[in-house]
Amino acid sequence: MSLDYLFKPKSIVLIGAAHSEEKLGGVILKNLLKFRGRVYPVNPKYSELMGLKAYPSVHDIPEAVDLAIIMRPAAEVPEILRELAGKAKSVIIASSGFAEIGQTGLQEEVKKIGKDIGVRILGPNCMGLYNPYHKLDTFFLPYERLKRPKKGNVSVVSQSGAILSCLLSAVREANAGVSKAIGYGNAIDIDELDIYEYFAGDNNTDVVISYIESLGDGRKFIEKAKMLSEKKSLLILKAGKGVSGQAAAFSHTGRLAGRYEVFHSILKQFGIRETADFDELIDAVKALSFQGQGSRVKGQEKISNRVCIITNGGGSGVLAADECVIQGLEVAKLPDDKAEKLRQVFPYFYGINNPIDLTAQVKDEDYITALNELKNDYDGFVIIALPNVMGITERLADMIKEAKSGIDKPMIFHIPGNGVAKKLIYSLEKIKIPVYPSPERAVKGLKALLD
Amino acid sequence: MSLDYLFKPKSIVLIGAAHSEEKLGGVILKNLLKFRGRVYPVNPKYSELMGLKAYPSVHDIPEAVDLAIIMRPAAEVPEILRELAGKAKSVIIASSGFAEIGQTGLQEEVKKIGKDIGVRILGPNCMGLYNPYHKLDTFFLPYERLKRPKKGNVSVVSQSGAILSCLLSAVREANAGVSKAIGYGNAIDIDELDIYEYFAGDNNTDVVISYIESLGDGRKFIEKAKMLSEKKSLLILKAGKGVSGQAAAFSHTGRLAGRYEVFHSILKQFGIRETADFDELIDAVKALSFQGQGSRVKGQEKISNRVCIITNGGGSGVLAADECVIQGLEVAKLPDDKAEKLRQVFPYFYGINNPIDLTAQVKDEDYITALNELKNDYDGFVIIALPNVMGITERLADMIKEAKSGIDKPMIFHIPGNGVAKKLIYSLEKIKIPVYPSPERAVKGLKALLD
Repeated sequence: MSLDYLFKPKSIVLIGAAHSEEKLGGVILKNLLKFRGRVYPVNPKYSELMGLKAYPSVHDIPEAVDLAIIMRPAAEVPEILRELAGKAKSVIIASSGFAEIGQTGLQEEVKKIGKDIGVRILGPNCMGLYNPYHKLDTFFLPYERLKRPKKGNVSVVSQSGAILSCLLSAVREANAGVSKAIGYGNAIDIDELDIYEYFAGDNNTDVVISYIESLGDGRKFIEKAKMLSEKKSLLILKAGKGVSGQAAAFSHTGRLAGRYEVFHSILKQFGIRETADFDELIDAVKALSFQGQGSRVKGQEKISNRVCIITNGGGSGVLAADECVIQGLEVAKLPDDKAEKLRQVFPYFYGINNPIDLTAQVKDEDYITALNELKNDYDGFVIIALPNVMGITERLADMIKEAKSGIDKPMIFHIPGNGVAKKLIYSLEKIKIPVYPSPERAVKGLKALLD
Repeated sequence: MSLDYLFKPKSIVLIGAAHSEEKLGGVILKNLLKFRGRVYPVNPKYSELMGLKAYPSVHDIPEAVDLAIIMRPAAEVPEILRELAGKAKSVIIASSGFAEIGQTGLQEEVKKIGKDIGVRILGPNCMGLYNPYHKLDTFFLPYERLKRPKKGNVSVVSQSGAILSCLLSAVREANAGVSKAIGYGNAIDIDELDIYEYFAGDNNTDVVISYIESLGDGRKFIEKAKMLSEKKSLLILKAGKGVSGQAAAFSHTGRLAGRYEVFHSILKQFGIRETADFDELIDAVKALSFQGQGSRVKGQEKISNRVCIITNGGGSGVLAADECVIQGLEVAKLPDDKAEKLRQVFPYFYGINNPIDLTAQVKDEDYITALNELKNDYDGFVIIALPNVMGITERLADMIKEAKSGIDKPMIFHIPGNGVAKKLIYSLEKIKIPVYPSPERAVKGLKALLD
């Protein structure tokens, strides 16, 4: 059965709806008020909840719905699920209190009932989902506590609800947007494999973030991950790498984390990208979300790894060049004729090497001059604009915007994030030029695009 | 001769002072207006500059000064320096146009004159210095372009002015403060060795950041670095690690970067700390600036590496535990009796392991309960407070403040930096609890304290 009923339902019943945001069932209901389809809150104590007619039980709702959300104590879940037979096509069990606290029997019972009545189940012990294109938000977190990212091309899939919300915050701060976000918790039915398949066919998704603590069937996982990474930019963050982390992962979702080394080497073998940590993940996501599409489209040409660094601060250029070496990118010498040309147009004290050092005497237009001269000689550009000198102004973003259409290579900026630079950074990210707070992170961002 | 004349002058002459901030000599003069000692601007075209009496030449100033700052074209510098004989005890040559652009002859000449007339020289091609305790700021960067950090216990020494300003921005953003900051450029006289010695005796300095591209005498460097790191927390960031970076470093300051592998292994052998990149450096600085002092004072006890992680998000705890393993920190099992006690006071569904998982049902006071129970069983605490649930409030900072006096172990927080958390982060950092935006960075911060 397609997960469309889950991601794009036309009607929803919420069992455990509450009248105020002090209860989790109230938070979910509040978030569902933005949904454009039909919403049926179930709570026997109320005839109305947040302006919607409330129903005493699932039996009383006037239609079979696409999606049921359960936010009631774990012990009540089997009974509720049975009542949903024939009444719902998919179910989110948001409640916790199952295998993650040792209640494996209860979890097995729920799993069996789900199969018997023929519904797809997300959870239990899960965050649910967020699909801004469908105005759907089933999270039990209030908006004030977790500001949702805007619509975009990044989809996020995570076992852990905590990490899901951290990822969403980080995607938002990176000025990127989200297509779908889903927390699948204990995964008694729907797991990363189903979700990978769904995202592979989602037109709004270009980049997929997958946070994984444990795996069910390793072989199937690799198969699906490979399929997905051929269609979208898939980035995996694996937790539970060491013994301590593995123990923690087990007590968290009740699934075993497996031998990390094996997982790691298999991913590598199949060309599936794994990021080392949370920060590296978000840096790569930003680059891929902003510029990844383009690189993939012109995928016919061989992408190589020759990088040009253009800086107005010598030291920052050196740090970037160092990181290029670490990342396996080549800081290739300027072609002799181009170097000669640049020497003629630039002041004598500019450093015409790679990195090109525009010095503290830089003017905005110098970057454009260098970029236009070298756009066909490199595979990507790291541009460093330290805004502590008067020659760097907000006009730089306009100039880059104009030049960008003629340059089909990835461009990544490093601008330290102090006061004066905020507007410049904002303007650049608006035209999908990713900006990073350190030279090394900028290089890692570019690396994600040249991989 | 002590560098006090440089860092704490009573009188300053500025050769190349200008009337407006459009010229670098005007920016320096503006920054010197805050200085409480005597300032003599020299410029033959003006009788007054920014409200100060201006002098036609060095000969005309009424006294011999502690510090002369030269901001005139490179070719004029030898003559100006000769005029300073007997008129200045130390000199900053801010001007560029020397070895970094191949003018080694001119640089040698300047060096020789400096020796002949017996002054200490900082530069040329350098940023100068900032000493907020003395209200001294000789930078040619306007305040609006580089907001200076407040007074604090971090001193920064950098060959590169660009990196110096990036470091200062980052220290400020980390809510840390600065004791002294100095950019020494081409280093014809004063170099990192002199500055290390000076910082070793500076009572306001607890942490020293040293950004290095190239070295003069390697053996002396190790000797001084070892001496400094026994007195202060010294953190070295070395650029010019690969071939590309080394070439870039050479064209930047005209000094050879040397074989990085050798440098790296010698530092390790002598127990001198080197950080891998800019971001890791700043994360360590924040931890050491806030809590390093304490650890050093109680240095008699052996510091071990047993870490307790307390989290309200399972996944974030797993990522932190993973990073602990990578950093060589031990996520040691809870003592049985303590675990039993915590099981009695906490709800049954909390995860009483290490990490301790307080779940989405967390309340602020749970962190204090756990900390008080375990404060004598671990060497450091990573505390994760995801503010996406209602149980995390700003009161947490007050509670930590109160508990802190009874806990003499390092405490590091991870709080993702979204809207609701800003005040909480601010309040925690005000009481010197460092907060990091990812679990992995928090663990690295703690690692800096347990090293």
